[in-house]
Amino acid sequence: MVNDDTARGPRRTGIWFIGARGSVATTATIGALALARGAAPVTGLVTELDEIAQADLPPIDGFVIGGHDLAGSMVERAQELAGSGVVPAATVAAVLDDLAVVDSRVRPGADTTDGLADRSTTDRLERDLRAFRVENDLDRVVVVDVSSTEPPSPEAARLGTLDELDRALDAGTAPLPPSSLYAYAAFRAECPFVEFTPSTGPVVPALEELAKSQHLPWAGRDGKTGETLLKTALAPMFATRALAVRSWSAFNILGGGDGRTLADPAAAASKTATKAMALEAILGYPVEGPVRIDHVADMGDWKTAWDHVSFEGFLGTRMRMQVTWEGCDSALAAPLVLDLARLVARAHEVGHSGPVAELGFFFKEPLGGTTHALGDQWQALVRWCATLGETPGSAA
Amino acid sequence: MVNDDTARGPRRTGIWFIGARGSVATTATIGALALARGAAPVTGLVTELDEIAQADLPPIDGFVIGGHDLAGSMVERAQELAGSGVVPAATVAAVLDDLAVVDSRVRPGADTTDGLADRSTTDRLERDLRAFRVENDLDRVVVVDVSSTEPPSPEAARLGTLDELDRALDAGTAPLPPSSLYAYAAFRAECPFVEFTPSTGPVVPALEELAKSQHLPWAGRDGKTGETLLKTALAPMFATRALAVRSWSAFNILGGGDGRTLADPAAAASKTATKAMALEAILGYPVEGPVRIDHVADMGDWKTAWDHVSFEGFLGTRMRMQVTWEGCDSALAAPLVLDLARLVARAHEVGHSGPVAELGFFFKEPLGGTTHALGDQWQALVRWCATLGETPGSAA
Amino acid sequence: MVNDDTARGPRRTGIWFIGARGSVATTATIGALALARGAAPVTGLVTELDEIAQADLPPIDGFVIGGHDLAGSMVERAQELAGSGVVPAATVAAVLDDLAVVDSRVRPGADTTDGLADRSTTDRLERDLRAFRVENDLDRVVVVDVSSTEPPSPEAARLGTLDELDRALDAGTAPLPPSSLYAYAAFRAECPFVEFTPSTGPVVPALEELAKSQHLPWAGRDGKTGETLLKTALAPMFATRALAVRSWSAFNILGGGDGRTLADPAAAASKTATKAMALEAILGYPVEGPVRIDHVADMGDWKTAWDHVSFEGFLGTRMRMQVTWEGCDSALAAPLVLDLARLVARAHEVGHSGPVAELGFFFKEPLGGTTHALGDQWQALVRWCATLGETPGSAA
Amino acid sequence: MVNDDTARGPRRTGIWFIGARGSVATTATIGALALARGAAPVTGLVTELDEIAQADLPPIDGFVIGGHDLAGSMVERAQELAGSGVVPAATVAAVLDDLAVVDSRVRPGADTTDGLADRSTTDRLERDLRAFRVENDLDRVVVVDVSSTEPPSPEAARLGTLDELDRALDAGTAPLPPSSLYAYAAFRAECPFVEFTPSTGPVVPALEELAKSQHLPWAGRDGKTGETLLKTALAPMFATRALAVRSWSAFNILGGGDGRTLADPAAAASKTATKAMALEAILGYPVEGPVRIDHVADMGDWKTAWDHVSFEGFLGTRMRMQVTWEGCDSALAAPLVLDLARLVARAHEVGHSGPVAELGFFFKEPLGGTTHALGDQWQALVRWCATLGETPGSAA
Repeated sequence: MVNDDTARGPRRTGIWFIGARGSVATTATIGALALARGAAPVTGLVTELDEIAQADLPPIDGFVIGGHDLAGSMVERAQELAGSGVVPAATVAAVLDDLAVVDSRVRPGADTTDGLADRSTTDRLERDLRAFRVENDLDRVVVVDVSSTEPPSPEAARLGTLDELDRALDAGTAPLPPSSLYAYAAFRAECPFVEFTPSTGPVVPALEELAKSQHLPWAGRDGKTGETLLKTALAPMFATRALAVRSWSAFNILGGGDGRTLADPAAAASKTATKAMALEAILGYPVEGPVRIDHVADMGDWKTAWDHVSFEGFLGTRMRMQVTWEGCDSALAAPLVLDLARLVARAHEVGHSGPVAELGFFFKEPLGGTTHALGDQWQALVRWCATLGETPGSAA
Repeated sequence: MVNDDTARGPRRTGIWFIGARGSVATTATIGALALARGAAPVTGLVTELDEIAQADLPPIDGFVIGGHDLAGSMVERAQELAGSGVVPAATVAAVLDDLAVVDSRVRPGADTTDGLADRSTTDRLERDLRAFRVENDLDRVVVVDVSSTEPPSPEAARLGTLDELDRALDAGTAPLPPSSLYAYAAFRAECPFVEFTPSTGPVVPALEELAKSQHLPWAGRDGKTGETLLKTALAPMFATRALAVRSWSAFNILGGGDGRTLADPAAAASKTATKAMALEAILGYPVEGPVRIDHVADMGDWKTAWDHVSFEGFLGTRMRMQVTWEGCDSALAAPLVLDLARLVARAHEVGHSGPVAELGFFFKEPLGGTTHALGDQWQALVRWCATLGETPGSAA
Repeated sequence: MVNDDTARGPRRTGIWFIGARGSVATTATIGALALARGAAPVTGLVTELDEIAQADLPPIDGFVIGGHDLAGSMVERAQELAGSGVVPAATVAAVLDDLAVVDSRVRPGADTTDGLADRSTTDRLERDLRAFRVENDLDRVVVVDVSSTEPPSPEAARLGTLDELDRALDAGTAPLPPSSLYAYAAFRAECPFVEFTPSTGPVVPALEELAKSQHLPWAGRDGKTGETLLKTALAPMFATRALAVRSWSAFNILGGGDGRTLADPAAAASKTATKAMALEAILGYPVEGPVRIDHVADMGDWKTAWDHVSFEGFLGTRMRMQVTWEGCDSALAAPLVLDLARLVARAHEVGHSGPVAELGFFFKEPLGGTTHALGDQWQALVRWCATLGETPGSAA
Repeated sequence: MVNDDTARGPRRTGIWFIGARGSVATTATIGALALARGAAPVTGLVTELDEIAQADLPPIDGFVIGGHDLAGSMVERAQELAGSGVVPAATVAAVLDDLAVVDSRVRPGADTTDGLADRSTTDRLERDLRAFRVENDLDRVVVVDVSSTEPPSPEAARLGTLDELDRALDAGTAPLPPSSLYAYAAFRAECPFVEFTPSTGPVVPALEELAKSQHLPWAGRDGKTGETLLKTALAPMFATRALAVRSWSAFNILGGGDGRTLADPAAAASKTATKAMALEAILGYPVEGPVRIDHVADMGDWKTAWDHVSFEGFLGTRMRMQVTWEGCDSALAAPLVLDLARLVARAHEVGHSGPVAELGFFFKEPLGGTTHALGDQWQALVRWCATLGETPGSAA
């Protein structure tokens, strides 16, 4: 296949957000629209760094955005974000009309309050995706889950085969959480999938089987945007300097919708589980210490983390490090979402199938990956992008 | 040459400390003696990690230690260190007799109060080194400078050739600071050299020429033990995430001898210069912000650093990170000194000549090296150690 | 009554610790013994400041110490404390024999595993106290509870009258937690009582009635030693500067016995309840934010707290303050325990009956007091001490 | 005199800002205008707290504002402040017309580049003040210095008498810095004066004599808005708990005009001198540790301070506290400026003459005051306000 951009314009990539009217999706959409107009800098976009851009990624000005959500409005959400200083008011104003167009493409999401899913729901979600691709003449559509974190779903994890899952859907008794329903629909509609939250999503044997049979790439899980990012940058320092970490205590306070969701201990359990993985993986031994997330409404979209690290050096001398991180969750997550959409679209283009291990750089729980150390993840990503760069990108 | 350790015992490596009765050398010596007796854990020793140990390094129980200093006593210093909690009292007690033996090998250092050096001084220093090697039946002697930081020495930097330097020494007008005198004597005595402070040491064209002509390896400069270590672990995170660092302010308070030395603005200039290099090197752009070192006698051997980082993310959102690091300078530096002695001894053994770029991992100013990023430096070190491991180590 | 110190020596005050072999009581005892020998400075002792010393308090060298506990040894505990750097090894060595004498006075405590108390237990505890006073020829005995924190006891709080309580004790069905049993026995034995923990202790209507009928002073509750101390020093700053505190999040990590006890959510509930009171009391409005205590064994006797305060200033500008506090729990609590024993003994001497409101300075929950602001509490304490100073102190 | 507010409206108070177009004066003016329209909350205004409001202070809606400055525009400055988030854009928009009126009253300031002042300058400044009072039918005018910090002026401090000063002015050789020139003119024009910066201002014997002869109150020096505020809230905690502070290190980074001024070591000397006073005054002994102010342009109007406190408790145990304060300088200073104008106006109204010691609560260097402890200063202020409340306020 030849890249005939000159004839048809750049490759056209659809991004379909699960949770399209939330802060992350709205910020990402505002950013994509502003970047397409040249009205925003590329700060925060990993895919604009030379080492990654060499992969010949689909351009942001070829993005078309839609999504599923249960309620709300991207326009209202954008105005809230401008009001609280997450996004400049001028940027929101510049793209408000475009944003309304995106919002008009948002379709009602799946509301499975009884926890059991049936075929009619997944069929509807699948149709939405197929229609979006056709109507917008898209080369491909990447589905990205940025909806509220769900509690862990042990039932889904036990679903052994695709056959079992299909029979359960037909019977209306599939124990799938919403994130996994969306992943099912995405794979059926031949769309790659990015699980940006700690929810179950595609991490179910039956769904992994489906992705494989459809020759689809997918990536996850749980975007690494703050405290865990820091941990995976700092823990290798202790490891390679042979300093023994004795305890690592981590406390997060945040407001906003994400904070509210995580105030529910069941949902928080998903998050603290992925947050706790990195340390032992990097250091090679278990490390004592709490990992807590507390909701403080006053913080709004901002989250502050305090990490207290106690470590031992030569001849047993005890020392300490403390870090505080004051970040804006949406501003940290939004560019990564665009980066992942581009990279997974490119993986699809070159025929990659299954979890993309090389994207571990972006995730708290790097599925398919073998390391949590940020620097090593970066090297793996760069090597992969160099390989991708040798295959020409192409529009359909 | 065959490694006949069984016949003669392990390879015997001399370490000759410039500033042998200071905190760092004394802590390192206590540690080496305790390790040789199996009376201390290897925490903090990079050379005991599998990736580095594969280089077939000379063993610590083959170390023989001596040095130059102007005054003091290692035994008294050790008791002070135990009193202030830097080294366990039990460890000091266990090695006190051995330590007195080491102290008896310490020779008077070079006191060049007028700033001009002559031949008689360097001849004496050289004789001390040769005698130490012969008397102790050593395979080689590595000279390690851990003496007080000197002010920058622009005159020395301008010394163009070895011939010029030799003529100036003969005339008693060589503008060499003490650290460079020691480097001259070391190279003349066929000893590799480690510059662990920010002083000039071997970083003079005439001395680099001398090291080359003697086929000697050397390494430097300024051990990376605290705030700069953190910077070089954290700055790559900002770089690879495309986050724009807007300011990075760094404040250090420390007591002890090092703190007292650095309270002198001239000496501090050497230190803050090496501390400031890393950021721009890693990020690729200059970053605003003070780097300060203040002497607070009350802190004793402990140093606390506060770093305040302001950075910009997607759509210009401003965020902040703060780090405090509470470390014990001697406990952080001492194991690195032993690591470097082993690695430079090994470099000498395999015939390496000139600055060892692969040791950048240990230094604020990685001479001969090409990167300041800690993770990349680690990878370079590991690769080199893998190569070294392919050549068998050997006793003389 | 005339102070005939010259004839009989100084006033002799008994201190009876509930939890005598714990870290706080052992540290306080070591300190009292060392102070009596002139082998320790008075740092940390509020009662040695001029403003408080004017109250003519009983001298520390007139202290005789005993207590109740279930197990352990003060000598072993002292050696642990020296090992972890809480108390200097030399100080422990200097008083070890005296400490063994104190330990020999420790009597078995009350173990009420079924939660119901009977008369035989309280009779035994009362006899222990009376015997201690007589055998040591003491002017008075102050009982101080420094045992492990208990969960809240709503049943005890509902005990209306002393009559009801006495009947329940006779029937073996009194719903009193151990701390309240000890308070009952103390009051019966005519001993003033200090509740230094957040446990129920004397805060039961029936016990307050008993104290009153016996003309006894008592004080509580929950010694203010760390984060809450800071809060009550800082919150008045926000109040008097008309800055609106929007959220105040507080996280504590600590190891040791206290940390282990508080890792139990039921026990922690007592503590976080007293910790949360101060802010609203000082500011006059409720403030959002978590108060958490986490057990991190690695911290030993040390506790570190991080407080994050978000506040609003002129024209709605949002600002932030963060505090970290790295303290040693026993070293902070021990001198206050001695201070309280002296002050409550003095209150007893001058005939004070009921809760001593003027001691609010020392407590997280200042019983009988009207303010939580540290500065105001200090002023109240000083005024009271000035009054006390006008009445001569006296030995029996 | 009877308060005939009903006949003439409320008491009319002039505020004359030295440095009227700077951030502090502009923010204060925006705030006063917004408060007069009921378009802003009273957060941050100490004079709106009940304890202070009882002093029967002149109302903010009776304020008329003018000032001296060398260049600039209050309207442009207001727009900058809105752009950087110091003041809400909506508040600025609401008062922009009123602000332009205030700006039209700003007169050219005194530019004494040679450091010597003459009579013609002071006469002009005095005329400006008299004209402002007459033209706006004001009961009184309070002059408030919020201009850039000057270096210390040892020459001015040596000016012994008013006679000497008058002769030097007549000769054009008076060694007065600008702040003192303004104070001279203010006193001549019968205006009370507030020195809100660390500059010399009225703190010259000759000027104190002038104020006394004119029966004028004045107040100073150097508004206590951030790190020093914290110190004076926290240091009494250490003092009253008998904890020995061993070192207190303080580092400030700030941008904006104030930061730029203080990047000049000469000007910073004034500031660090006033900042260092409080600790020794409160604790009663000198405390080691640096006090630094560094300019970081990136911080804009925001300043961040880090304080590291090392202290000793019972039996010599060493502990640590750290505080970071992230505040907006203008937002912290502006309401205090309005508070001081009201309080000094009231002092003038009741006939107070000389430095107002009771205003120490507001200043780093509380002139005429006897304590630096924030809580004690608050009590002194409240007591004074209670007295003031007994004298009726009155319009001229």
